Amino acid sequence: MTTTTDLPVSPAQLRSAELERQLARDPGRFRALTGDRPTGALHLGHYFGTLHNRVRLQDLGVDVFVLIADYQVLTDRDVAERLTEHVEGMLLDYLAIGIDPARTTVFNHSAVPALNQLLLPFLSLVSVAELGRNPTVKDEITHSRQSAVSGLMYTYPVHQAADILFCKGDLVPVGQDQLPHLEVTRTVARRFNERYGAVFPEPDALLSATPLLLGTDGTKMSKSRNNSVALGASEDETARLIRGATTDADRHITYDPVARPGVSGLVLLAALCLGRDPHAVAEEIGNGGSAALKRTVTDAVNATMAPIRARRAAYAQDMGYVRDVLRAGNERANAVAETTLDEVRQAMGMIR
Amino acid sequence: MTTTTDLPVSPAQLRSAELERQLARDPGRFRALTGDRPTGALHLGHYFGTLHNRVRLQDLGVDVFVLIADYQVLTDRDVAERLTEHVEGMLLDYLAIGIDPARTTVFNHSAVPALNQLLLPFLSLVSVAELGRNPTVKDEITHSRQSAVSGLMYTYPVHQAADILFCKGDLVPVGQDQLPHLEVTRTVARRFNERYGAVFPEPDALLSATPLLLGTDGTKMSKSRNNSVALGASEDETARLIRGATTDADRHITYDPVARPGVSGLVLLAALCLGRDPHAVAEEIGNGGSAALKRTVTDAVNATMAPIRARRAAYAQDMGYVRDVLRAGNERANAVAETTLDEVRQAMGMIR
Repeated sequence: MTTTTDLPVSPAQLRSAELERQLARDPGRFRALTGDRPTGALHLGHYFGTLHNRVRLQDLGVDVFVLIADYQVLTDRDVAERLTEHVEGMLLDYLAIGIDPARTTVFNHSAVPALNQLLLPFLSLVSVAELGRNPTVKDEITHSRQSAVSGLMYTYPVHQAADILFCKGDLVPVGQDQLPHLEVTRTVARRFNERYGAVFPEPDALLSATPLLLGTDGTKMSKSRNNSVALGASEDETARLIRGATTDADRHITYDPVARPGVSGLVLLAALCLGRDPHAVAEEIGNGGSAALKRTVTDAVNATMAPIRARRAAYAQDMGYVRDVLRAGNERANAVAETTLDEVRQAMGMIR
Repeated sequence: MTTTTDLPVSPAQLRSAELERQLARDPGRFRALTGDRPTGALHLGHYFGTLHNRVRLQDLGVDVFVLIADYQVLTDRDVAERLTEHVEGMLLDYLAIGIDPARTTVFNHSAVPALNQLLLPFLSLVSVAELGRNPTVKDEITHSRQSAVSGLMYTYPVHQAADILFCKGDLVPVGQDQLPHLEVTRTVARRFNERYGAVFPEPDALLSATPLLLGTDGTKMSKSRNNSVALGASEDETARLIRGATTDADRHITYDPVARPGVSGLVLLAALCLGRDPHAVAEEIGNGGSAALKRTVTDAVNATMAPIRARRAAYAQDMGYVRDVLRAGNERANAVAETTLDEVRQAMGMIR
């Protein structure tokens, strides 16, 4: 019999483990690029899946760039709804979890023209056939809200190459499903360097070690399904959402993600908040049933989030400062992008 | 029997005729966008097909923008060869034919990031199916030097929408084959305005009145086929190229583009240089045969080009000034593009 820890290890996982060793030795040689689409509130799935890790990398001493991908909201819908609200909410979330604007650059796509310009030369390096083959794009097209696939959806892995390469990011924290995108970026970097001379690094994926958190309904956690606890939610909202979570009729609580996705999702959430092993958390609750499990989860989430929520509320009192954080981040991103674009123009023989 | 002047008139031609009447009344209300890919030397086909018309529009009082589309060189080839040489050659050609940098804005793609950024929102307005259907793109793919169609080729009609709309161009001088591209621009403008509010004009095509000039070998005139007289060619080079032109065995010279493409191409070239009707030119040569025809063409071309070539040679003595023309044009194009991009960000609700 195998347990999850005995699963075969992929080359990407091996590479990530090697990168973690290098990070421990010399974090200052890395520049990481991560980001979010401002389509709604960030939630606990984002927190444990990626946000937490960004703060870890920042605190290690990695130069972290965090992109708010405002144009990419439009890959799967016609119009970006309540964009300002979502962007401001993200800025509050970032600051609340410990992103330090003195060390980490937070910026948004639409404010950095020199980054976006890189889409042009990069599109020349990728064939239409390659764009059409991308498995993640295919999957996202299946789940799109649009009847027709937009040109933006089709080309966005190349735009993502521009996101990563404009700052010469060499470390990209991703989930397994994002690996095909990073492969596009690596291809673009390699082909550019072959044709025009060495300008770009071939960035590495840093795979997340956190198992996937499901939503309170046992399905994929999603901003739009109302099955996730937002970082900015109150203690009462948190309690209510967890109370309504899908469990099962077996009073004995165990951690078995395949057979019992609902119960196990809650156990995992508590375990992540408590920094403990999910099997141990389940065993402790034992025959307490769903009610005891939900109490444990609610207490654990609210305790973990309390300081984050307090900081979030404090920053929300000073939106002028919050917007200045973005403004300063955009200024730095523009400076970096213009330097890279100049190198690209030079390498390609473009006159100015 | 029909002659060419009795051919049915298309809606686009009727519209162009109406635009010409408006141009005669109020040229100052128009802004025109035209341009060239810097893939080689501009030749007489360009001169009579489009360059001459740009100077006419400029002199009428239209605000003309001339784009050197350096990125779009890469739509059908891997690398842009001798790019600086071609761009500088174009600048010399523009100045030589009478483009006045005080009235006309000459700029190149790679120097105007805010223009290029418009590709992002515009790609969200067009479906992949629409991109794949474009007949001109299909044709250009057939003639491409590349084995695979690049993402840049596939998306370039949308990039062209950015070229035209960044300066809110409302007049686009084009040939018949470019009408599908302009339709993409009109669609992008209309959809943007519907979703986000009125920002862009829906630009009109101004169809060229000049019949198509064939190359000296009787096929399409092309920078790469060595069948065209470059604007910068010497009198001797001109004579040599016309001497080698394909004609036929019939000593009696007539103007009959369908039955006698070689002879008629030469007749047309002489007629365009002399500002006369091609039938009259042919009649005058009569039984003089190819030799007399070629002498007439050579003399007409060299006489027409003499002042242009003299100015070109003079400007070539001062490449510092020539580069300053581009620099100043890029500065103006950037200012215009940034203003438009700000309106676009505002309309789409993007935070800065």
